Amino acid sequence: MPLVRISIRGGKPPAYRAALREGIYRAMRETFNVPDEDNFMVLTQHDEDELIFSKTYFNIARSDDFVMIQLTVSNTRSLEQKKALFARIVQLLGEKPGVRKEDVFINLVEVGKENWSFGNGIAQYVSD
Amino acid sequence: MPLVRISIRGGKPPAYRAALREGIYRAMRETFNVPDEDNFMVLTQHDEDELIFSKTYFNIARSDDFVMIQLTVSNTRSLEQKKALFARIVQLLGEKPGVRKEDVFINLVEVGKENWSFGNGIAQYVSD
Amino acid sequence: MPLVRISIRGGKPPAYRAALREGIYRAMRETFNVPDEDNFMVLTQHDEDELIFSKTYFNIARSDDFVMIQLTVSNTRSLEQKKALFARIVQLLGEKPGVRKEDVFINLVEVGKENWSFGNGIAQYVSD
Repeated sequence: MPLVRISIRGGKPPAYRAALREGIYRAMRETFNVPDEDNFMVLTQHDEDELIFSKTYFNIARSDDFVMIQLTVSNTRSLEQKKALFARIVQLLGEKPGVRKEDVFINLVEVGKENWSFGNGIAQYVSD
Repeated sequence: MPLVRISIRGGKPPAYRAALREGIYRAMRETFNVPDEDNFMVLTQHDEDELIFSKTYFNIARSDDFVMIQLTVSNTRSLEQKKALFARIVQLLGEKPGVRKEDVFINLVEVGKENWSFGNGIAQYVSD
Repeated sequence: MPLVRISIRGGKPPAYRAALREGIYRAMRETFNVPDEDNFMVLTQHDEDELIFSKTYFNIARSDDFVMIQLTVSNTRSLEQKKALFARIVQLLGEKPGVRKEDVFINLVEVGKENWSFGNGIAQYVSD
């Protein structure tokens, strides 16, 4: 059910962008119990003056490889699961495509389970 | 009040995109009691590797005509209204521009009525 | 902590876009107690048929200089702070780059404090 928006600077090759998507999806599978094949994402690339980030906030030294990730998810996860998701995304993106841990910004937007329709005009999570 | 984000693959003609916008707006009018002229949308077009969707999740066979719709709305609608919105969007987009029902993905983000300003720096829904 | 999405028509010079970003950030600092350097934004430019807005809703005469601002923030602000934010954004953007007050649309999406990671895979606002 997550709807994931990924925002990065332009100029990265397709394999880099694919690794971002795959790492985030795998982290959601492992920590948020996201079902197999539940993968819906928009990845956008931006010029320097369209993607803005602090290079120092929280004493974190961000670089131009900054990755902003906003995930809309159902409101069913615990604090421990959220912490696990954040850590796992950073670990996996660090392995591939090799994003520095300082460069990964994550935000969760939570909604009710009845707020999703995956096709056919049905609210699948609350149908019977 | 809705703020609607529509994401599709590139390559569709302007009339197709207009029909998407008009169908979604009409469905909100009919099921969510959205006022006349309350129409604020961003429609973006994406390359194949920037708009990701499962072709099988929930046993729904999605195609490259996949339409991702995320609507930010006030938190005032019932479950029945949400189900009606989902069904009506799918029905209207099926009629025009002819989107397959399997290809319509919808997500609602709900916010308080005080979270909107339509201009002039005023929170119109909670002003007196 | 805010994640700010700004959507405008294309064609404005870089200084105009910078003034938008700076005015919104300053307004958040002054009314929402946003910390120094807490600045994360995506600004996108759109064709005429990709950014849709009513030219009359709430009897507000919007122009092609319409600015749509959606801010994801922690759910810790009062109604008075929200009203102050809306008013201050409009005032500052009116001063520079000179946006008409009718053209500023603002929406807030609120999330829990535990829903943010600013880097390093940590939920900074709930860590100890």
